[in-house]
Amino acid sequence: MRETMNQLDAAFKGKATPEMEQISRDERVPVEKIIGGIRAGRIVIPKNLRRDLERPRGIGEGLRVKVNANIGTSPDESDLEGEIEKVKTAIKAGTDTVMDLSTGGNLREIRKAIVSRCNVPLGSVPVYEIAVDAGRSEREIADVSEDEMLAAVELHGRDGIDFVTVHCGVTLSVMEMAKKARRVTDVVSRGGAILLEWMHENRMENPFYSRYDDLLDIARKYDLTLSLGDGMRPGSLADANDTAQFGELMVISELVRRARSANVQVMVEGPGHVPIHLVEANVVLEKSTCDGAPFYVLGPLVTDVAPGYDHIVGAIGGAVAAAKGADFLCYVTPSEHLRLPSVEDVKTGVIASRIAAHAADVARGLPGAAEWDRSLSEARRAFDWKKELSMAIDPELAQKLRASSPPKDPELCTMCSDFCAMKKSSPVFRNES
Amino acid sequence: MRETMNQLDAAFKGKATPEMEQISRDERVPVEKIIGGIRAGRIVIPKNLRRDLERPRGIGEGLRVKVNANIGTSPDESDLEGEIEKVKTAIKAGTDTVMDLSTGGNLREIRKAIVSRCNVPLGSVPVYEIAVDAGRSEREIADVSEDEMLAAVELHGRDGIDFVTVHCGVTLSVMEMAKKARRVTDVVSRGGAILLEWMHENRMENPFYSRYDDLLDIARKYDLTLSLGDGMRPGSLADANDTAQFGELMVISELVRRARSANVQVMVEGPGHVPIHLVEANVVLEKSTCDGAPFYVLGPLVTDVAPGYDHIVGAIGGAVAAAKGADFLCYVTPSEHLRLPSVEDVKTGVIASRIAAHAADVARGLPGAAEWDRSLSEARRAFDWKKELSMAIDPELAQKLRASSPPKDPELCTMCSDFCAMKKSSPVFRNES
Repeated sequence: MRETMNQLDAAFKGKATPEMEQISRDERVPVEKIIGGIRAGRIVIPKNLRRDLERPRGIGEGLRVKVNANIGTSPDESDLEGEIEKVKTAIKAGTDTVMDLSTGGNLREIRKAIVSRCNVPLGSVPVYEIAVDAGRSEREIADVSEDEMLAAVELHGRDGIDFVTVHCGVTLSVMEMAKKARRVTDVVSRGGAILLEWMHENRMENPFYSRYDDLLDIARKYDLTLSLGDGMRPGSLADANDTAQFGELMVISELVRRARSANVQVMVEGPGHVPIHLVEANVVLEKSTCDGAPFYVLGPLVTDVAPGYDHIVGAIGGAVAAAKGADFLCYVTPSEHLRLPSVEDVKTGVIASRIAAHAADVARGLPGAAEWDRSLSEARRAFDWKKELSMAIDPELAQKLRASSPPKDPELCTMCSDFCAMKKSSPVFRNES
Repeated sequence: MRETMNQLDAAFKGKATPEMEQISRDERVPVEKIIGGIRAGRIVIPKNLRRDLERPRGIGEGLRVKVNANIGTSPDESDLEGEIEKVKTAIKAGTDTVMDLSTGGNLREIRKAIVSRCNVPLGSVPVYEIAVDAGRSEREIADVSEDEMLAAVELHGRDGIDFVTVHCGVTLSVMEMAKKARRVTDVVSRGGAILLEWMHENRMENPFYSRYDDLLDIARKYDLTLSLGDGMRPGSLADANDTAQFGELMVISELVRRARSANVQVMVEGPGHVPIHLVEANVVLEKSTCDGAPFYVLGPLVTDVAPGYDHIVGAIGGAVAAAKGADFLCYVTPSEHLRLPSVEDVKTGVIASRIAAHAADVARGLPGAAEWDRSLSEARRAFDWKKELSMAIDPELAQKLRASSPPKDPELCTMCSDFCAMKKSSPVFRNES
């Protein structure tokens, strides 16, 4: 692995890293804008100094909305090959990043296998490993020391992880707010719940908050981007936008500033289950209190009632959030709330989130976004099926569906056939018949 | 068939029809509100006087957002049994209405078969039959007389259809606007294209506009709700919100007023392909220019690039539109733009649109909407899987997905297993362990 330059150090020197240059080309955005965005903390480039990353990604202001795919084993299902297959599938489907959330099997072996096969930024949640290791050595989570907690983050940095979720904002005072909030679903963040258990048992402050400066030192060492997790994200519409959630955001806003002062790249995680009319407030509040730090949302899920279809529910919320300024969408698969996702679920989840992200890119007027729609529609109007289908977000599926129902006239389709409106109106608009 | 009362006549007498009473009970809305809404033209109850309708539906202000499923044969695929299966599937999946858009096979036989099996309001587009009949008798569409056009609508009324799409707003002046608009996809409304062809060849005004008073007479006779079709709906993002589209809406706004004066129930159809940031303007403009007439949108589709996933694309647009005030969502299936939808597509399309409609109901604070989410989430928090899954929007699929991946601990699931956040945080919030 070659050592590269800390993105923030470079930005402050006014220098473009190779990653900034590549992103500038990929996104048709001047490299000066990227340098400025990194310096202001409004863009992050998650890339471990130890990684050779074929496809670096910039996340934040003025850039395409990005999509993350969560994969990883659980105690009930722990098949390394299956997870590798999911990584490949997610990348093929066009995910921008992957997170390894494994909690079953040999976690380090899995992580290393994924690092070596993942050519897009890779994230993780080190506190999961802490909890898994504690369980395996028959210790209570409360018995894990603060140093061990920090050591887990360091290990992930050493292993080449590009960004880590750390639930630093789950403080004792936020915990008290959450108790008073009398939520329907309490806490649905696994990392948040692990830290709450530790704090509750030990009657001590969250180590990722009390030892935040040490965490920043580790992050800087690897240029590990911190993704400040929302341990209090609502797990049901009834809990959305409550004091626990926004209390945590206020703590996070302080931590964003401290990370920036320490030359550590940082982004902020957001909900969760939120009804449509409350989604925008989440984006506005994050952007204003965290001074434009990249906002990374999970969904949001705009209803609780559709297990089996949460990729659609998340695409609705993600599109609304991203159109209003969220920068990074964590996918949700059809299996959310029901089971560990399958390989097929991973593909479906990535495509659903990419649709949301692209719809938001168009709404935000990002370079090239609307051109994709226009070019595909021009091919559609020209009845150039080959071109149209090859430009689809999932060419394989589009081709398969069309091939399954061959039209009599190869220029048309079996939906409207001879009554194709574009065809019928040709004499009116184009002197064609 | 029993004869019942014209909804508007009853409303003007301050009387509740049995349909109004049933809707009042179903939606937990005082019947006086429904009477007032009908009288103001802000609610419609599509129900042919000749129909016994087991499940009448109200569409409009203060009521749940409704979902329509389009079914019907095409010249390429014309299987009556298959279409009946789609009707059953759509109703089972929870559609509020069905539209028969058949253009292949024996149209009247198909229509009658569907009327007799469809216990929810049934819509149609009579101009399709005009075009099919013309083609079969080897006549040009331009040779069809105005009287024949009106007779087709009358026939649909006589056959028991509850609402008809009529593209009355596609006038000669709108056609000229559309020519100047230089659109990417010209016209994508089949009914619109048929009428344009007629107008273009004959150099005469759209008969559904010039003979609108006669159309109103027919509609009143059967209490046939008119759905004023948007022949100029954009078929690509590039064409959204242009002069052709809004020019037609201005004509439609005049026609809404005339329908109301004639005691004819009327709603207004809307797009189509529209980028997210332009969706709200469609709702605001329709509501303001048409004095709150129910707004029935197709999608909207917030990107052109996802054939194969247009149910997701339409769910995003539908949720945004309905949250802002659209009243009625026409579903879009995964096969849109590719082929005639399959039975499975019909189910997927209905569920996707119902998710969008429900998310909007929650946003609009409609009675009972948020309670569904809360109850399901309470069951989720109580680890009462049986109750949770039975309350899902598609219990069968939710049960199937869970059953496919049995967890070791039956209280948990294979996603998080022992690391279930709700379980782990119990000691903090509920003195449970």
